[in-house]
Amino acid sequence: MTAQPDQRITISVDAMGGDKGPATVISGMAKSAEKNPELGYILHGPEDELREMIARRRGGQMLLDRISFRDARDVVTMEDKPSHVVRHGKGTSMWSTLESVRLGEAHGAVSCGNTGALMALSMMRLRKLPGVTRPAIAILWPSRNPQGFNVMLDVGADVRADATDLLQFALMGASYARNGLDLPRPRIGLLNVGTEEHKGRSELKKAHEMIESFADRANFEFVGFVEGGDIPGNRTDVIITDGFTGNVAIKTGEGTASLIGDLLREAFRYSPLSRIASVLALTSLKRLQKRIDPRRVNGGVFLGLNGTVVKSHGGADDTGVSAAIKLAFQLAKSDFSEKLAARVASTVELAQDEVHFASATQEKQEGS
Amino acid sequence: MTAQPDQRITISVDAMGGDKGPATVISGMAKSAEKNPELGYILHGPEDELREMIARRRGGQMLLDRISFRDARDVVTMEDKPSHVVRHGKGTSMWSTLESVRLGEAHGAVSCGNTGALMALSMMRLRKLPGVTRPAIAILWPSRNPQGFNVMLDVGADVRADATDLLQFALMGASYARNGLDLPRPRIGLLNVGTEEHKGRSELKKAHEMIESFADRANFEFVGFVEGGDIPGNRTDVIITDGFTGNVAIKTGEGTASLIGDLLREAFRYSPLSRIASVLALTSLKRLQKRIDPRRVNGGVFLGLNGTVVKSHGGADDTGVSAAIKLAFQLAKSDFSEKLAARVASTVELAQDEVHFASATQEKQEGS
Repeated sequence: MTAQPDQRITISVDAMGGDKGPATVISGMAKSAEKNPELGYILHGPEDELREMIARRRGGQMLLDRISFRDARDVVTMEDKPSHVVRHGKGTSMWSTLESVRLGEAHGAVSCGNTGALMALSMMRLRKLPGVTRPAIAILWPSRNPQGFNVMLDVGADVRADATDLLQFALMGASYARNGLDLPRPRIGLLNVGTEEHKGRSELKKAHEMIESFADRANFEFVGFVEGGDIPGNRTDVIITDGFTGNVAIKTGEGTASLIGDLLREAFRYSPLSRIASVLALTSLKRLQKRIDPRRVNGGVFLGLNGTVVKSHGGADDTGVSAAIKLAFQLAKSDFSEKLAARVASTVELAQDEVHFASATQEKQEGS
Repeated sequence: MTAQPDQRITISVDAMGGDKGPATVISGMAKSAEKNPELGYILHGPEDELREMIARRRGGQMLLDRISFRDARDVVTMEDKPSHVVRHGKGTSMWSTLESVRLGEAHGAVSCGNTGALMALSMMRLRKLPGVTRPAIAILWPSRNPQGFNVMLDVGADVRADATDLLQFALMGASYARNGLDLPRPRIGLLNVGTEEHKGRSELKKAHEMIESFADRANFEFVGFVEGGDIPGNRTDVIITDGFTGNVAIKTGEGTASLIGDLLREAFRYSPLSRIASVLALTSLKRLQKRIDPRRVNGGVFLGLNGTVVKSHGGADDTGVSAAIKLAFQLAKSDFSEKLAARVASTVELAQDEVHFASATQEKQEGS
């Protein structure tokens, strides 16, 4: 579904399944709606309860005017196995949320629910793009880049990725960086345990070759192997890895940042002098906090599907939900989904041409 | 080599191969020697140059009195491939450093050099402990634990680990936590992308079962799967993972901490008021810095070998080198190497008994 200029962008929102309940999701929707007059919603969950909840809010009527409802009684919990949800999840708000994207009623979907279930349902209902074997989840990570963030994928769609998957991640990540971070020729790095070409697992060496050979045609710069320290660094704009490594890396980074934050607060509580210092330092610290606040870049984007799905952090507050909605809006507005599909399709063709060319050349040589 | 009470502990030190050169290594040695009268050294590298370098220092003669020299003219560089060093590295200071441990002249070794080469040489010269398939590198990581640190292994000895390797890492990690962190019954966690038992790769599910079944006999508490966020957390004392994931995780954590540190400094430089605040906050920030300073816990310990080898960070300054020497000293003092060998051996026996018992029972049943 392509967004027309002057047309309202509609985001399909799952009210349920987040750790903080539907009231937080609604607050996030209200925040985004206030800032953005182009935004409309389809909201999925127990309609009567949700309507009542919104009507009770200040300015609730205005928000209600921008929402269509789809009544869904069931909820996918964090404990539900993806395979179970795929078989029995038809009555859930998550299923219904994706259905609005599938039917073309909405330009993108946002859910705070169970990541595994959301990915499994998205693959089944929206289907993978032609040419994509394994979809991936991409996130933005605070970095030393001029744009302030790196793209990283996969951070948890699948625990495996072979060399071809990693190449597709590179193509999708480059496309995301062009549309999401406005980088015409993004730098792509492949995550490994060292930057020397002989290091790491064999599939990484193969992926290195494949990504390198596609760099010019797909209009990105391949910087080769990068290390964990480059995720918050400035050597690359996009970090390519499998979903197991990516997931561990971002959770380690988040945990480390949170530990430092707590220790910083503790340090400033230590003595009367440090308490005075903390008051004076407040604006500096707030500025820092804003710069690295994970809520501001909340939202993992599912890449490789027919449609845009943004997974918000399960524990997101209203600021986080609002950031995820904003991301879905931006991607819809830039026709990202269509551009990505075109990019992947053209690369699949290029790759096939190459194979045909190679075999044709070989046949010719064998024939001569 | 077991340390006797009242006996000086001798650490074998590689003067070469670090990013900052031998002068930094010597400064680190001097720092440790000043604080610790029980410490003696064997120093490996170009003897005449090293002697001259030390003699020129203030108090250099006193340091010289505590050092035996082994002249070694060649250096392992960061670019050298491990396989090359194993074949052609006999004249290097790194080889010589390990030789002192192998010959029983020293209680442990410290090197700032090429990690891959140091591990390959250690495996070849010191040999693996009976029952160990894959040695591992263990580090300490700042955490919310009462002891302030978690143990994590493997962080880069090998990019692979199967279920049996992960079990051995658990046994070795538990032993290290007992001797290095003084925890009688450490908590062990297996790193995964979620805490639910159905998540993750198949070798992790198998390792989960194996580690669980050994917990009581090997005197640790198994907390099951943990996530990246638990590395700086308080759910576990020891984190078990393969060397690829572990290496990416620690480098991501280091990179994130360093980014926050830089942004913090930047935030405090922003305005005159924030500059005043930073002066007042100085002691608080210094306290924090000391708490999470990676130099204070510098040193990856190679576990699973006949002898203690501590790998210092290649870019370590004198504080870092001194911390690595202190760690090697502590482990030598506690006869860690012997305890670990005994622990691994007894577990191998236990496992073999179990297999014998199982097959004996089966035979009996089949015979009846």
